[in-house]
Amino acid sequence: MLVEGRHFPRAADPYRLGHKALAVNLSDMAAVGARPRYALLAGALPTGDSEWLASFMHGFDALASRHGVELIGGDTTKGPLTLCVTIIGDVPKGCAITRSGAKPDDVVYVSGTIGEAALALEANAGRVTVDERTLRACAERLEVPTPRVELGVALRGVASSALDVSDGLVGDLGHILDASHVGATVDVAAIPTHPALRALLSTPDRPRALACLLAGGDDYELCFTATPAAQARVAEIAQSLALPVTAIGRITSAPGLVVRDEAGNALSALPHAFDHFT
Amino acid sequence: MLVEGRHFPRAADPYRLGHKALAVNLSDMAAVGARPRYALLAGALPTGDSEWLASFMHGFDALASRHGVELIGGDTTKGPLTLCVTIIGDVPKGCAITRSGAKPDDVVYVSGTIGEAALALEANAGRVTVDERTLRACAERLEVPTPRVELGVALRGVASSALDVSDGLVGDLGHILDASHVGATVDVAAIPTHPALRALLSTPDRPRALACLLAGGDDYELCFTATPAAQARVAEIAQSLALPVTAIGRITSAPGLVVRDEAGNALSALPHAFDHFT
Repeated sequence: MLVEGRHFPRAADPYRLGHKALAVNLSDMAAVGARPRYALLAGALPTGDSEWLASFMHGFDALASRHGVELIGGDTTKGPLTLCVTIIGDVPKGCAITRSGAKPDDVVYVSGTIGEAALALEANAGRVTVDERTLRACAERLEVPTPRVELGVALRGVASSALDVSDGLVGDLGHILDASHVGATVDVAAIPTHPALRALLSTPDRPRALACLLAGGDDYELCFTATPAAQARVAEIAQSLALPVTAIGRITSAPGLVVRDEAGNALSALPHAFDHFT
Repeated sequence: MLVEGRHFPRAADPYRLGHKALAVNLSDMAAVGARPRYALLAGALPTGDSEWLASFMHGFDALASRHGVELIGGDTTKGPLTLCVTIIGDVPKGCAITRSGAKPDDVVYVSGTIGEAALALEANAGRVTVDERTLRACAERLEVPTPRVELGVALRGVASSALDVSDGLVGDLGHILDASHVGATVDVAAIPTHPALRALLSTPDRPRALACLLAGGDDYELCFTATPAAQARVAEIAQSLALPVTAIGRITSAPGLVVRDEAGNALSALPHAFDHFT
């Protein structure tokens, strides 16, 4: 459920919003290795603005058809702009990737790059300064995220656990650790991100940059674990999808998440994940 | 999608709201003869008020378990109070009841009584006066509607078309007529309703009473059609469910809906159905 003023700004481009409303749901399918099939869309709309709605639906439909997803139902009513998508997909019996399968010694991976959507939010709010080209690239990540559906499907039987990074790496990986009753060590230096965000880590903006990297939401990359023996298979999948997949740490039997800085020292405090009620 | 201030008042009892949020969706299942199986619930909530939420979920769960419906997913976020339920059910292949199967000479039926929820709304707004006991009975219809799931299932292969009366009889029956490319004649005198609403038809409040009867929403009864030959079967079903089912008119080959008053004269103007954008 996406609420205006909370998940997207008032003036959000309707085409991009239509894309994103579906994309975040496709990302949930990707996280469990499911193939999305059907979507339902409900919207509370402040007015019956047909131009806005047509543009929104173009964005929604373009992404839906790219993934063979059929819109099979929904609802519209008047109200504060709120969008609710339900996604239905399938996965062969027993092949769904869960959060609870991570085992000590498993490698922790992320797809793509992390922290760029959060960097766009920080730059848009004027809290950090980045060059125009970086901002444009990061805003694309924020506004038209690419759900990693094919990666999720390819990881069936390969990943021991997975989820999508929607609320921040620390918080989302924390869900895997909790469900799997394990801990993890992650290296800041290993987390793939935009060079501009990497550079910010060496400036007085380091705390903000770390927060983008570790607690920024909205990237919609997958974070997953797999046994060390599966390393070659993971590399093959990444190559076949032309999507970088990077090892960022290891699962440990000791509970808790340890994030190590570039010098190998554990960070004493971790930035908080996005909380839906603050 | 139910929006505070539009589909329910600000101070709505959370237990009843939980019931209604699911009930209106079960009613959609009933309208196509489907057996509801799974529900997803998304809510934008102004605060994380756990007492409110617990009461809401009690109302939701009580109705869900009565119908064997399993809550399998959803979402919560902060925002103007908005509830979105997605319902998933099944019906044997080819047995779904549609809106497009009504044929000339078919009998038009409604279940239960019509117009009571609207009468409660009118009375609550002080536009009509009814006695305390009537108001309580009608408020029950409005706030804790009973979805006609068993009737819908029983009507598979019997009804030629069906839908649930959620936006008013005239408008909802109109959807059947449009989809079936037929017309209908309906008799005001035949529409089953509360005696208090029937009595209001003979007072200066007749226009308001007619509007409740013909254009009042929220009753969540089924309106359906069946061949004259199926009349005994329909009566059997009604008896087995202990749910009154009443013939209120006939399908005609001439398009358009004619509503006849108690003297058999066509009403010159029909009250409008609920419009979701006005």
